[in-house]
Amino acid sequence: MNHQALAVDRNRARVRVLDRTSGKETDLPYDRLIIATGARSRKLGLPGEDRDNIFMLKGMADGIRMRRFIDERRPRKAVIVGAGYISLEVAEALRERKVETTLLYRGEAPYSGLEPELGPLIVDELQAHGVAFKGGVLPRAFETEGRRAVKIATNQGDFAADLFFVGVGVEPHIELAREAGLAIGPAGGIQVNDRMQTGDPLIYAAGDCCEKFHRVTGRPVISPLGDTANKEGRVAGENAAGGDSRFYGIVGAASSKVFNVEIGMAGITEDAAKRLGFTAVSQVVEAKSRVGIYPGAQYSLLKIVADQATGRLLGGNWIGRDGEARKINTLAVALHNNMTLEEISRLDLAYAPPFSPVWDPLLIAAGLLKRKVKN
Amino acid sequence: MNHQALAVDRNRARVRVLDRTSGKETDLPYDRLIIATGARSRKLGLPGEDRDNIFMLKGMADGIRMRRFIDERRPRKAVIVGAGYISLEVAEALRERKVETTLLYRGEAPYSGLEPELGPLIVDELQAHGVAFKGGVLPRAFETEGRRAVKIATNQGDFAADLFFVGVGVEPHIELAREAGLAIGPAGGIQVNDRMQTGDPLIYAAGDCCEKFHRVTGRPVISPLGDTANKEGRVAGENAAGGDSRFYGIVGAASSKVFNVEIGMAGITEDAAKRLGFTAVSQVVEAKSRVGIYPGAQYSLLKIVADQATGRLLGGNWIGRDGEARKINTLAVALHNNMTLEEISRLDLAYAPPFSPVWDPLLIAAGLLKRKVKN
Repeated sequence: MNHQALAVDRNRARVRVLDRTSGKETDLPYDRLIIATGARSRKLGLPGEDRDNIFMLKGMADGIRMRRFIDERRPRKAVIVGAGYISLEVAEALRERKVETTLLYRGEAPYSGLEPELGPLIVDELQAHGVAFKGGVLPRAFETEGRRAVKIATNQGDFAADLFFVGVGVEPHIELAREAGLAIGPAGGIQVNDRMQTGDPLIYAAGDCCEKFHRVTGRPVISPLGDTANKEGRVAGENAAGGDSRFYGIVGAASSKVFNVEIGMAGITEDAAKRLGFTAVSQVVEAKSRVGIYPGAQYSLLKIVADQATGRLLGGNWIGRDGEARKINTLAVALHNNMTLEEISRLDLAYAPPFSPVWDPLLIAAGLLKRKVKN
Repeated sequence: MNHQALAVDRNRARVRVLDRTSGKETDLPYDRLIIATGARSRKLGLPGEDRDNIFMLKGMADGIRMRRFIDERRPRKAVIVGAGYISLEVAEALRERKVETTLLYRGEAPYSGLEPELGPLIVDELQAHGVAFKGGVLPRAFETEGRRAVKIATNQGDFAADLFFVGVGVEPHIELAREAGLAIGPAGGIQVNDRMQTGDPLIYAAGDCCEKFHRVTGRPVISPLGDTANKEGRVAGENAAGGDSRFYGIVGAASSKVFNVEIGMAGITEDAAKRLGFTAVSQVVEAKSRVGIYPGAQYSLLKIVADQATGRLLGGNWIGRDGEARKINTLAVALHNNMTLEEISRLDLAYAPPFSPVWDPLLIAAGLLKRKVKN
């Protein structure tokens, strides 16, 4: 089983397939076709990027290759380019192995979907665990010696290392679909409807190769996450098999862990909202994760964003050390239902001293922010 | 400041108030009146219940009195009657102080709002921490020696102890309202509308003395919880001061901790749904709290209940040792919005390996249960 789809002939309803083992090509007929070509790691596009000690992480083989390099070569110094959740997980894993680690990022704080108010907490946590973070860094080239990169040159000087990791996201694998004449959407993925159907009614697409409908903005986006891809695959499969199933779109719900800090995100940031034309208002609430006198209570920080014109919640970030990531789905469901701040401020949420303050920070934030909106 | 309201004269818009310090009574005029008389601990109504080593827990003074007794008398053996969240917290506190503890309850497992499938996990956790649990117990009388109770006689024999705790809930303090001629509702609390207004437009009521509108059943209920009372108080206060604020009702969201097990509850149980005339269907899902291979993954058990006729979620219980209580608000918001299983099964929820499996147990439960409903 080592086959690659080379081309789709929509007129004849056939896929040209290469058997990589034998080198033979065959035509497979289809009644319905599902394209699930996924995504590939984005490259920096810099000189020297193909060297043996520069790693990316997309499939299992990438991970095995990187682990083998670490086991055999025992690198002492690593530079990571990019600061999304994959890069941060790699940083944590490298520190577990006592590798000196520097994280370089174009932004001022990790995560592209992060509100700036939360950035310092993550940068502090990285530094407390021995990861140096440098923001505003634009890489220019790798300096190499034979098959090895030895330095990365940037607008902020050179950074030497014996292991480099590039984690700057993924891009949809759309070539097969594009060459078959299927529409590629404005966000750069295969365009599908809510039944995961492409412009050709016989062809479905699902997963990281597709655009997703963002329920908060009403626009298509690229959002390559495993759970979303998995859900889309089921919808595409059900429909291709004659069912009638729909994918309702995403609300941008995500969570991540950086050493002992956890973060949940849902919807869009204040900056993103403004770029999209919303008159966005926001509220930051500092709280405790439990009733203040309860043992284990930790600092917790929530920011929510709303549309001033309608009072509708647009997004939120929640960060802390005691369950915040598991609380973000409260916002995800509120976003799914287009709830307003007024409605959210009146929600009946569970309260017990080990799990939240009497007034859940979300209720406080919504109660404060609703004074700044029109409805 | 030690005053007690004795009577409300609605014709003259005055409250008769006793100054307990001086013994004087005065009439206070009002433009708007808010009744917030709260609730009092329910008694068993058994012979001997007034003895000095029998405790209840409602106000701060009760707690101080009980702690003083424990500090001074060093009880070695305690019997708790009732198994709601207060009783379970008392059991945990007594075990901290090495007191041998037995919990007697009329039901087969703790918590009146618990689904029976989850009961064994709580009973096991109690027993693992040295709390003996006896279900199906109906107390009959306390045996006493002077000012002390020495035994409690029940349908399952006598239980000796040197400290007794009665935690069988609270009942609304409605006498003042009833004597003023205000309507008491079918659930036994002061009847109010969504502005927390009683039948008299000048009089509001809030907190544990009132009935609450249950959004899932559409009926009034008694639900004496601090966060709800606090919210109602704000609504009553805003309206009494000339504002226009509404309390949207509750969805039965609650959480609790029993040693290392945590539990979240929202909505109504399958049994309660059937008693109310719903054709209820349910789904139990056993899951891990994190991706299975992720360190710290724990057993997690979720049960959800839905209305077969409409596919609407009616409730859920979630139990485990790793964040389940903080996840219950996902269900609370879904219940607030009358979401159906079909909608819930398609939700975009945050996923990351330290915090949930790829398919959140709620999505799995809704996906399975939607096959059993009509819409």
